[in-house]
Amino acid sequence: MTTLEIVRAARGAKNALMLASAQQKNQALLAMAAALEDQCAAILKANEADLENARGTVPDVMLDRLRLSEERVAGMARGIREAAALPDPVGRTLSEETRPNGLVLQKVTVPMGVIAIIYESRPNVTSDAAALALKSGSACVLRGGKEAFRSNNAIVEALRAGLRSVGLPAELVSLVQDTSRASATELMKASGLVDLLIPRGGAGLIRACVENATVPCIQTGTGICHIYVDKAADLDMALNIVENAKTSRPSVCNAAEVCLVHKDIAPAFLPRLRQRLVDERQAKGLEPVELRLDKAAAALIPGTPAGEADFDTEFLAYTLAVAVVEDVQAAIRHIEAHSTGHSESIVTGDAAAAAAFTAGVDSAAVYVNASTRFTDGGEFGLGCEMGISTQKLHARGPMGLAELVSYKYIIRGNGQIR
Amino acid sequence: MTTLEIVRAARGAKNALMLASAQQKNQALLAMAAALEDQCAAILKANEADLENARGTVPDVMLDRLRLSEERVAGMARGIREAAALPDPVGRTLSEETRPNGLVLQKVTVPMGVIAIIYESRPNVTSDAAALALKSGSACVLRGGKEAFRSNNAIVEALRAGLRSVGLPAELVSLVQDTSRASATELMKASGLVDLLIPRGGAGLIRACVENATVPCIQTGTGICHIYVDKAADLDMALNIVENAKTSRPSVCNAAEVCLVHKDIAPAFLPRLRQRLVDERQAKGLEPVELRLDKAAAALIPGTPAGEADFDTEFLAYTLAVAVVEDVQAAIRHIEAHSTGHSESIVTGDAAAAAAFTAGVDSAAVYVNASTRFTDGGEFGLGCEMGISTQKLHARGPMGLAELVSYKYIIRGNGQIR
Repeated sequence: MTTLEIVRAARGAKNALMLASAQQKNQALLAMAAALEDQCAAILKANEADLENARGTVPDVMLDRLRLSEERVAGMARGIREAAALPDPVGRTLSEETRPNGLVLQKVTVPMGVIAIIYESRPNVTSDAAALALKSGSACVLRGGKEAFRSNNAIVEALRAGLRSVGLPAELVSLVQDTSRASATELMKASGLVDLLIPRGGAGLIRACVENATVPCIQTGTGICHIYVDKAADLDMALNIVENAKTSRPSVCNAAEVCLVHKDIAPAFLPRLRQRLVDERQAKGLEPVELRLDKAAAALIPGTPAGEADFDTEFLAYTLAVAVVEDVQAAIRHIEAHSTGHSESIVTGDAAAAAAFTAGVDSAAVYVNASTRFTDGGEFGLGCEMGISTQKLHARGPMGLAELVSYKYIIRGNGQIR
Repeated sequence: MTTLEIVRAARGAKNALMLASAQQKNQALLAMAAALEDQCAAILKANEADLENARGTVPDVMLDRLRLSEERVAGMARGIREAAALPDPVGRTLSEETRPNGLVLQKVTVPMGVIAIIYESRPNVTSDAAALALKSGSACVLRGGKEAFRSNNAIVEALRAGLRSVGLPAELVSLVQDTSRASATELMKASGLVDLLIPRGGAGLIRACVENATVPCIQTGTGICHIYVDKAADLDMALNIVENAKTSRPSVCNAAEVCLVHKDIAPAFLPRLRQRLVDERQAKGLEPVELRLDKAAAALIPGTPAGEADFDTEFLAYTLAVAVVEDVQAAIRHIEAHSTGHSESIVTGDAAAAAAFTAGVDSAAVYVNASTRFTDGGEFGLGCEMGISTQKLHARGPMGLAELVSYKYIIRGNGQIR
C-alpha cells in the first residue's frame, strides 16, 4: 500500500476507536501486549536481519539502539500495559454551564482522529507511540527509520494481531512501507487526512516538518538547555546540578548544553566546575566533559575557546559551553537569544533572582535549584510521554495522554434560536 | 518599515507586556479606548478616503462593511473597555503538585509572545484583535485588507498613542504597511518570530495559510454547517431552527448551509420548509431562500436540482442545500464527508438519536435542538472572540482569551538531580 492509501485506511478505521469505550480500548491494549510477547521470536528474527544489514554501515552506539532482546520486547509489552492502566483521556467533561438562554454547554475531550508519527530512533518507539495513540482514541500511522524497518514491521504485525483478536480493525495501527524521505513529506502534506503530526527526531527532521507540513504539527525535542549559576548559588548544589544535567545522559534533549555563571561567583565556581567535570571524571576513567569557554571564562580556567556556534548547538555529547554573565537579567537575555525553549534552570538562594528568572525565561520548563533532566512525562507525573513540545501551540513540554486529545462543545437546547 | 522589520520590532517590545501586571494591561486598554474616541475625527477622515477610493470598484455590501461612523468608533472603544473588564488570562495556575522527590511542579498560563492576524474584513477587527492580543499579554502584528488601509492605519495610530500615554512601547500594536499578498506570505513564513498566526477571512486565505505557513497557525472560520431534522423532530421547532440558522445572518460562518432530513419525515417536513423559507419570505417582501435539492427532496417539493458541489459549498447567501437521508447514521456519514468541522445540529425528540449524533459528529460545536448560530464567543460566555477554530489542535470552536495564551511549567526544588 502507498503511504496515502495507508493514511486513508487509518481514517476509515478511526471511527471504530473514537466511539470505543475505555474498557474496549484497554482490552485492545492488553491484547496488543500479549501479542508482542507471543511473537517475540519473529520480532527478534526481524531485528537480527536489521542488525545484519546495518552492521558496518552505522556507528556502534546506533547498533545498540537498534538491538532488541527478549527483555526489551518484554519492556515494550510492559509499556503497553502501563498505558492501559492510565485514566482514559477521552470523554472527560472540561466544563459544563447553563447559559442564560437555557442552552447547556458542555466541553468534552475527544480523540484527534488520525495521528501520524515520524521517528528515527529505536524500534520500541513503534509500540510506545501506537499504545499512546490508541489509548487516546486515535488511529496512528507510524513512519520509522529505514534501519529498523524489519523490526518495526514485525512489531506492528504483532500489534495488529492484538487488535484483530478483540474485533478492532488492524488499520488502527499502520507502518508506512516506504522509508524514503518522500513518505515523510507525504505525511506532512496529507491535509484533511492527518489530524496531528508528531515528528520525533533530530533537528533536521523537525525543521523539515516546520517547513513542509500543511497538517497540524507539534515541534518536539530539540533542547539547548541552560543552567544559570547565580551569584547567590550554593556552589555544591550548582556543581551537582550541572554535572547531572550534563553527564547523566548527554544524548537526550533535556541534557544541559550551556552553563551561564554570574561574574561575581565565576572565580570561585569555574575552577570547581572544571575539577568536577574534567579532572574527577578522568580520574574515574569516565569521559571528561569538553568545556567550550567564552573569553571571561577562559580567563579563569583552561578549556577550548568557544566559537559563536557553540552557544547555539545541541551537542548531545560530553561538551558544555560556558559563559560568564553580568547578572540574572543578562542570563535571561542570553537564554532568549539562544534557547530552543525546552528547559532552563537557575541555581540560587536568592528568591528575587529566582522570581526574575521564572518570570522572564519563556521556555517550556523553568527550574529553580533542580536539574533540567526532570523534563519528562514520567517525572512530571503524566504516566507516559509522546514527546516534548518546544512550541507554544496546544501543548508545551512533556506530552502525555491529555495532550493527545482535542475537545468539542456539545450544546443541548429545547428549540433555542438566536 | 518592511513587514519583517515590523515583526522584529513587535518581538523586541513583547517582553514589556509579558511581564506587565493585569492592572497595567487594563490601564493600557482604557487609554487605547480613550485615544480612539479622541481621534475619532481623524479616523473618520481616513475612512472617508478609503470609501472614496473603493466606490465603484467594490460591491455596496462591502462598502457598508468598510464604512465607519461616530457610533461605530464608539462601539470599537466600548469593545476595548469590555476586554479590559474581562479576567486576566495570564498567570493562572492550571495545576500544582508536589512530586515524590519534593519538586513542586506548577503549570501556569503565559502569553504567546507575538500574534499575527491576517484579516480581510471590517476595520473594527483592527481594534478588536489588538485589544484581545494585548489583554492576553502578546504583541500583535495586524495585516488588514487594502480597501481599509487608511482606516486601519488611523485606528492603529490611535491605539499606539494610548500605549505611549501609559509608558508602553507603541510597537506592541503594529499594522503591516504592505497590503500585497507578499506581506501575508512573509508573516506565514516568519518562523521563530511569530508565535501564533490567526487568519480571519474566506476559504482562500485559510487555504493559503495552511499551505504556506511555517509558523504555528490556527485555521478559523469556514463553516459548512448542517441541520439534521430527525424522524422524531418537533417539526415546528425544526422549522424555527432551520429558518434561524439559514436566514438570521447568512453571511457568517455559523449560518447553516445544508439541511438533512430523515426520509420518514421528509414528506411532511419539506413542503412546510419550502413554505417557510420561500413562500412566506416572499409574501413578507424578504429575499426567499433558494433550495438546492437532492433527488429525493426534489421528488417532494419544487426547487433547484442540487449539483455535487452544492453539498461542499459555503454559500454565505440565501441558499440552502437539502438532502433526504436514511437515518441518523447516514446523516453522521454525510456530515463527516462534507462538513468543515464547524457546527452541526440535530433536531429530535429521541434521546438515542441525539446521543448517536453528539457522539458521532466530530465538529467543534454539536447541537441538539438549537440553532448553529450560537457558535460564538459571546454566546458561549467567553466574553469575546478572536475567531472560531475549525481545527483540533490547541483550540476548537470560539477562541476567547483562554485560547490566546500558552502555558509553561515552573519547577522549584532544593537541589534535586535525576
